[in-house]
Amino acid sequence: MTSDSGRAHHQLWGGRFTGALSDAAAELNRSLPVDRRLWRQDVRVAQAWVSALAVAGIIAPAEERTLADGLRRVAERLADGADAHAPDEDVHTLVERLLYEEVGEIAGKLNTGRSRNDQVATDLRLWCLEAAASVRQEVTALATVLAERASAGIDVLLPGYTHGQRAQPVRWAYVLLAHAWPLIRDLQRLNEVSDRTGELPLGAGAVAGSFVPIDRERLCEILGFRRIAANSLDVTGDRDFVADLVHALAMVSVHLSRLCGEFAVYTSSEYGFVRLDDAYSTGSSLLPQKRNPDIFELARAKSARVVAALSGLLNLLRGLPAGYSKDLQEDKAFLFDAVDTLLLTLPAVRGAIETLQPVPDRMRAALNSSLLATDLADGLAGEGVPFREAHAVVGRLVRHAEAQGIELRTITEADAAALHPSLPRLIAAVGTFEDSVERRRTTGGASREAVARQLREVRSSLAKPGGTRP
Amino acid sequence: MTSDSGRAHHQLWGGRFTGALSDAAAELNRSLPVDRRLWRQDVRVAQAWVSALAVAGIIAPAEERTLADGLRRVAERLADGADAHAPDEDVHTLVERLLYEEVGEIAGKLNTGRSRNDQVATDLRLWCLEAAASVRQEVTALATVLAERASAGIDVLLPGYTHGQRAQPVRWAYVLLAHAWPLIRDLQRLNEVSDRTGELPLGAGAVAGSFVPIDRERLCEILGFRRIAANSLDVTGDRDFVADLVHALAMVSVHLSRLCGEFAVYTSSEYGFVRLDDAYSTGSSLLPQKRNPDIFELARAKSARVVAALSGLLNLLRGLPAGYSKDLQEDKAFLFDAVDTLLLTLPAVRGAIETLQPVPDRMRAALNSSLLATDLADGLAGEGVPFREAHAVVGRLVRHAEAQGIELRTITEADAAALHPSLPRLIAAVGTFEDSVERRRTTGGASREAVARQLREVRSSLAKPGGTRP
Amino acid sequence: MTSDSGRAHHQLWGGRFTGALSDAAAELNRSLPVDRRLWRQDVRVAQAWVSALAVAGIIAPAEERTLADGLRRVAERLADGADAHAPDEDVHTLVERLLYEEVGEIAGKLNTGRSRNDQVATDLRLWCLEAAASVRQEVTALATVLAERASAGIDVLLPGYTHGQRAQPVRWAYVLLAHAWPLIRDLQRLNEVSDRTGELPLGAGAVAGSFVPIDRERLCEILGFRRIAANSLDVTGDRDFVADLVHALAMVSVHLSRLCGEFAVYTSSEYGFVRLDDAYSTGSSLLPQKRNPDIFELARAKSARVVAALSGLLNLLRGLPAGYSKDLQEDKAFLFDAVDTLLLTLPAVRGAIETLQPVPDRMRAALNSSLLATDLADGLAGEGVPFREAHAVVGRLVRHAEAQGIELRTITEADAAALHPSLPRLIAAVGTFEDSVERRRTTGGASREAVARQLREVRSSLAKPGGTRP
Amino acid sequence: MTSDSGRAHHQLWGGRFTGALSDAAAELNRSLPVDRRLWRQDVRVAQAWVSALAVAGIIAPAEERTLADGLRRVAERLADGADAHAPDEDVHTLVERLLYEEVGEIAGKLNTGRSRNDQVATDLRLWCLEAAASVRQEVTALATVLAERASAGIDVLLPGYTHGQRAQPVRWAYVLLAHAWPLIRDLQRLNEVSDRTGELPLGAGAVAGSFVPIDRERLCEILGFRRIAANSLDVTGDRDFVADLVHALAMVSVHLSRLCGEFAVYTSSEYGFVRLDDAYSTGSSLLPQKRNPDIFELARAKSARVVAALSGLLNLLRGLPAGYSKDLQEDKAFLFDAVDTLLLTLPAVRGAIETLQPVPDRMRAALNSSLLATDLADGLAGEGVPFREAHAVVGRLVRHAEAQGIELRTITEADAAALHPSLPRLIAAVGTFEDSVERRRTTGGASREAVARQLREVRSSLAKPGGTRP
Repeated sequence: MTSDSGRAHHQLWGGRFTGALSDAAAELNRSLPVDRRLWRQDVRVAQAWVSALAVAGIIAPAEERTLADGLRRVAERLADGADAHAPDEDVHTLVERLLYEEVGEIAGKLNTGRSRNDQVATDLRLWCLEAAASVRQEVTALATVLAERASAGIDVLLPGYTHGQRAQPVRWAYVLLAHAWPLIRDLQRLNEVSDRTGELPLGAGAVAGSFVPIDRERLCEILGFRRIAANSLDVTGDRDFVADLVHALAMVSVHLSRLCGEFAVYTSSEYGFVRLDDAYSTGSSLLPQKRNPDIFELARAKSARVVAALSGLLNLLRGLPAGYSKDLQEDKAFLFDAVDTLLLTLPAVRGAIETLQPVPDRMRAALNSSLLATDLADGLAGEGVPFREAHAVVGRLVRHAEAQGIELRTITEADAAALHPSLPRLIAAVGTFEDSVERRRTTGGASREAVARQLREVRSSLAKPGGTRP
Repeated sequence: MTSDSGRAHHQLWGGRFTGALSDAAAELNRSLPVDRRLWRQDVRVAQAWVSALAVAGIIAPAEERTLADGLRRVAERLADGADAHAPDEDVHTLVERLLYEEVGEIAGKLNTGRSRNDQVATDLRLWCLEAAASVRQEVTALATVLAERASAGIDVLLPGYTHGQRAQPVRWAYVLLAHAWPLIRDLQRLNEVSDRTGELPLGAGAVAGSFVPIDRERLCEILGFRRIAANSLDVTGDRDFVADLVHALAMVSVHLSRLCGEFAVYTSSEYGFVRLDDAYSTGSSLLPQKRNPDIFELARAKSARVVAALSGLLNLLRGLPAGYSKDLQEDKAFLFDAVDTLLLTLPAVRGAIETLQPVPDRMRAALNSSLLATDLADGLAGEGVPFREAHAVVGRLVRHAEAQGIELRTITEADAAALHPSLPRLIAAVGTFEDSVERRRTTGGASREAVARQLREVRSSLAKPGGTRP
Repeated sequence: MTSDSGRAHHQLWGGRFTGALSDAAAELNRSLPVDRRLWRQDVRVAQAWVSALAVAGIIAPAEERTLADGLRRVAERLADGADAHAPDEDVHTLVERLLYEEVGEIAGKLNTGRSRNDQVATDLRLWCLEAAASVRQEVTALATVLAERASAGIDVLLPGYTHGQRAQPVRWAYVLLAHAWPLIRDLQRLNEVSDRTGELPLGAGAVAGSFVPIDRERLCEILGFRRIAANSLDVTGDRDFVADLVHALAMVSVHLSRLCGEFAVYTSSEYGFVRLDDAYSTGSSLLPQKRNPDIFELARAKSARVVAALSGLLNLLRGLPAGYSKDLQEDKAFLFDAVDTLLLTLPAVRGAIETLQPVPDRMRAALNSSLLATDLADGLAGEGVPFREAHAVVGRLVRHAEAQGIELRTITEADAAALHPSLPRLIAAVGTFEDSVERRRTTGGASREAVARQLREVRSSLAKPGGTRP
Repeated sequence: MTSDSGRAHHQLWGGRFTGALSDAAAELNRSLPVDRRLWRQDVRVAQAWVSALAVAGIIAPAEERTLADGLRRVAERLADGADAHAPDEDVHTLVERLLYEEVGEIAGKLNTGRSRNDQVATDLRLWCLEAAASVRQEVTALATVLAERASAGIDVLLPGYTHGQRAQPVRWAYVLLAHAWPLIRDLQRLNEVSDRTGELPLGAGAVAGSFVPIDRERLCEILGFRRIAANSLDVTGDRDFVADLVHALAMVSVHLSRLCGEFAVYTSSEYGFVRLDDAYSTGSSLLPQKRNPDIFELARAKSARVVAALSGLLNLLRGLPAGYSKDLQEDKAFLFDAVDTLLLTLPAVRGAIETLQPVPDRMRAALNSSLLATDLADGLAGEGVPFREAHAVVGRLVRHAEAQGIELRTITEADAAALHPSLPRLIAAVGTFEDSVERRRTTGGASREAVARQLREVRSSLAKPGGTRP
């Protein structure tokens, strides 16, 4: 077709050129190694377009049948791997070339009134909608596992930490649920992103709309979009939906990094709060005794990659004019990498959490009486001592115990009374760590009942599309 | 109060320490220069807490009155600049110190059952809600100006560009609206972010909930939140709402960079499509003739800053355990800078757009007959020539004209016919640039009616909270 | 070997485990798809280690020969593609497994006193040294092309731009050389990075050094390193050399984006300063007349990717303790992508620059007399008028000409004299654009002689290793 | 001066404009709040320029004296705070306005042949050179403290960790030095950056060089630069030196984050390896017993900020043409923030390290006999067992001990012999943890002598400018 242009392969352009594209340029320009993943979407969009051309009277019913049959065969060949070593410039050229092979010159009618600009935007939105659904499913599965483990961990106490330091006793279930909620927010975010992704580009042409009187409402329905993109110049150059999705993925990855970073610490000999199952532990090539939390470390590390993808993508878009610029071709490398990374990481993390063994004895052993200091200050405050003063009094008590190398509870009555007359009595009455936890009864607190209520709410949110809370 | 601790200033902690904090540590640790902007929120939250303590019976009615009066006076002093050279560690310490100065030792009751961890989370969410509202207002104003300018620019034609190259004739209004739609998406995003920000942290304590039986539902209402945060460990360490807001701001800034990057090019002598008003132009210190689009350049540049803030913030959060870590203190530098940057940039860009003069003659002069090439290919396709072949034929026509150094329309009939028999007729019939534009009649296209419809839709979206489209 | 561990494949660890690694964990953990590119380095390092073990008396001469022969055969198999569908965990496991296949159980002696931690660090440094050399070569080639094009462009004048606005006349050679100097700085940077990369990790063991009395000085020499890493805990967890290299690559990519961004603008119809050769131009699938600077757009876009890799890498390293953490496995994805991106982009950009046609007529046509405004101000300053006043006077002259819609040089004598008595004479004497350029005679200026001198300096810098300037 | 332009303040431009700059535009455009920090550099550069104008015969000796005296007085006023509430556009305008106030209209001669473009580039390079020197000093101080602490910690043993898991016994000195070496690399990097920063922009004019026959060699000497910038178009738009410095700072900050992240873990109750001095510990507002490592957390967090500055800066530069664009104004916010952040963080970290107490008992208590597993495998390998097999044998030994809940060393002789006949003898001979450490004798290893040698090398590197190693 383009024999007179000196350009060798099937190509969607070239009439106006006399020389062939150089190897170096063709290599840089070629996006097929990345965008061939869009072939299902590209064929599906082509099928819808053929139908729309027929309805608009641009192609005859027989032509429609030929093209539709051809596209079905093209899809079969692609499903069989026809994209594997294809020489084409991009996925759109690949699909058109295969269609030529199947139906001959009539294939040239496929792209009447259509441009790669609206085509790739449509393909990519479809791909994003599917990717968001897959990630949503995996996030739901992980949050569900956290909730299941939590329901078995309501009785187990351990220190709650702030600044990496023991702060107050809490429930193991409470810690697990603290990592479930961010995932529920992720579901909400993914849901919102999907809604905004559902605007149809097809029919926008290269920049100005299509000369073909296409029924875009019908296209919308056929392809499962929610509404028509309002401005064709905008929609062909718009990649906000990619940025929004990658942001949502970056948030998921940050949440995984927080969960896994914290749990990696819990697997250390020093903490020993959890023990990874063999199926999720790795060893060392030199040190025979090692039992490494590689899964957690990798999940933590991968988030740097997803966040970098977001940063790269947003910076890619900076300063580009409206409409299509070739720079936009680079969006896919970021997007695909972010999605792949999460779909690789989420199941491994879920498995690790599902199978890890909590070690309640080690958790409880980490509770020492200084974790009751706040209870003592609260007690003084309950007797009318201004809290700031109560805090200072108990601070001195802690310092005293530390200087003597003893536990808070074994300080002598006289020493305690010297700091505040009520202290001896409060120390005697402070009770167990369980008692301390049960004092945090407000909604969202660490008491048994509050945690049980919270668990119900997590489950109910996970049951709703979009993870909505009341 | 903490005299025995050797720590000089008013401080919310210190009973347990014997030595003073070193200067270098105090300097690094001190967040007041950054977080003093939260004082309005901090006082408002303190007022709600005092009321909640009274309802819970923790303080007596008289104490409540004293504290409430004191806080009112503290707010007055802060409004008068009491934060300017304050020596305090952070905004919470500042407010508490001033309260001590106003009401004496009873001030120490304010923070009963409350921690800086839930306090700063609450302050910050309130601040974000207000910031999002301010940005929403500015974004709406800019989009409104674009719509206004568009309504006056429906008749003006210019080239639509792809790859920075002239592609097809479009309307000036159409270009302006292509930059309004991204802003409408921004409004949607800011709206979603605000919804998720409205979860109340107050009452979460340091990590485990509060020992005070606070009515959190009531706090929710008083402070204007939508629901209670479900897990106190999560909410004290959660900064997702900051990340979401900064992402929404980064998207706004990217949109500004695209608008301004494109319009900066239009101000060049080579394009000359728009002329900046003197009120939005700057000069050179050396070159007397210069007329620089500094506003557009700065708006483009600032987006690098906002995107960097997002990247920095997400990476800050990576790997932190649930609950409060001091690392979170760094969130505010990113957040404040992003909000400030946008509130500085948006009005300047709006003014520049509002006052710039389009130069229709230069726009029209940039239309040459090669922009009708697609119309010719469309014409051939309309006659049943497969589009891919039609494209190649017209490509050769363009090459021919270029080789002869002539316009497409002045090619000889014989030369055109040699390429395709229908070409001479189609060239004769191709009509004006206006005719070409009017052929793009589909929804979202560049035709007069489609643009008018689009303009109505922009206005109706801007009139709705959250910029929703039907 | 690990049959009793229930772990299926050849593995460098596992004795202590009873269950198999789950599929999800194995999938996430497996780095072979990324790190198999290191096989040449891994074999080379293994060969050096075998020799060192022999010298240290750990293996017998016959064993050394067996292992050395085996490794040679392993290298041959890998060169023939043995890594293509290998099931192994990573490149080190792959090499060891193949060695087992070649020489049997004695293969188990290879890793005596060696860990994957020092192994991968050594492999990666070797890889980086080679990558830096390849990039240096490509950067030199591009800078050389710029210098060649410059030497042919000394006579051609065009506007020099600031703020995207015409500022003063300069030479085309001068513009080209302005893009060569950043590349020379890149060569310096790459050279420095290579020096620091040349520290030998091998012999560091897992964390504490090796029990084998290896002669590390000899290893250094064999493998071409410059010195031994001083601390084994540091060097096994150190990826500064990767960060430095990726920074150097990010700088190269930013320079390409600046060159290509500027030249993309020059290809527009509005500027028309250069015309891309067909071998470096692309077309549109819809618009037959299009001639797109895809190469320049892609080079501009790719820099977002390389900068994101740098950002991701640095954030990956943040907060990790000294010594090896699995997080470090993620360094390679960033590194390889950055190197690949540049080695793909640089030749295409070089070709595009090498073949583009400058259009001197369009360049000269863009020079208008307002570009001589600074010459007039300089002239007034030369007569003793304070420059700031001279600037204001000429500013008014420009305003006057603009208001009348005339060129600066055609303003009436009376009007000019009204602004300053010397103006008419200075206007008459201002001369040609060539005269203006020749007035910038200082080193680094745009005059013919200064540019010729500069060109000599570029060439002499390119001839020196490390691009050093005197 | 610009009264006829309707522009109110002193301004370096404006003759050509009729309307005043709007408030919104002026606010966005104004850089004084950021760039006023450059006033010392700006005055110093102005002084050099005055001298150069005199040598070139552009100003008379008397004028030179007047301007030089005036600039001295301007510097005094600025040192007294004249910049505090100045209304000017930028620091250059500020300095010129003050000079007008001091010497009247002759001030207008200062900027003859000079532009803000070469001026700000020169100011900024001088500022960077000083900033790099300050950071170098602080980095040296911190590395020196690490070395001092190391020299006192040679006898103290603790586990070396990989993957956050105990790996092998090492010396406390060895751990401290592992964090000193990255800082020495930082010194090298800062040194290289300074060398490349020392290219003189002054005399480059706005874009094309200066019409004044300035002796740039002399300027170079006066201002302490190393060489003249070779291309004026390049040097006015070049911010590579800023990017290089910020990269060097980002590396320092990453190193601090690694040191502080690791040491924060050591302060936990679970590790308890070090205890922060009161002067570097902070407390909690709610929990009286808390002792938080805020300094370490903040140092870790701040690195996200410096890395974001680097990412932002590189992205700012992406795609800009050669020569000055206003976008470059944004470089300073990134640069200043990065430098300030490090100069705030480094002294606090140094103090914290200088004063912390290691707790040798807790360190030693963390050594358990599984840390000798590698020694056993090494022992088997020393007897000719292929290392891979030795590793597997000892792995089984560890599994066996773990299953029985006993220490490696207390396993029965029969059980050990069942795994390998040599094991009982090797277990008996494995010796103390000290013995194990002493087996790592190679350069860079953890043995006493290797560490002592290393310490000498650190000190000698710190004594050399540029931290060079032999």
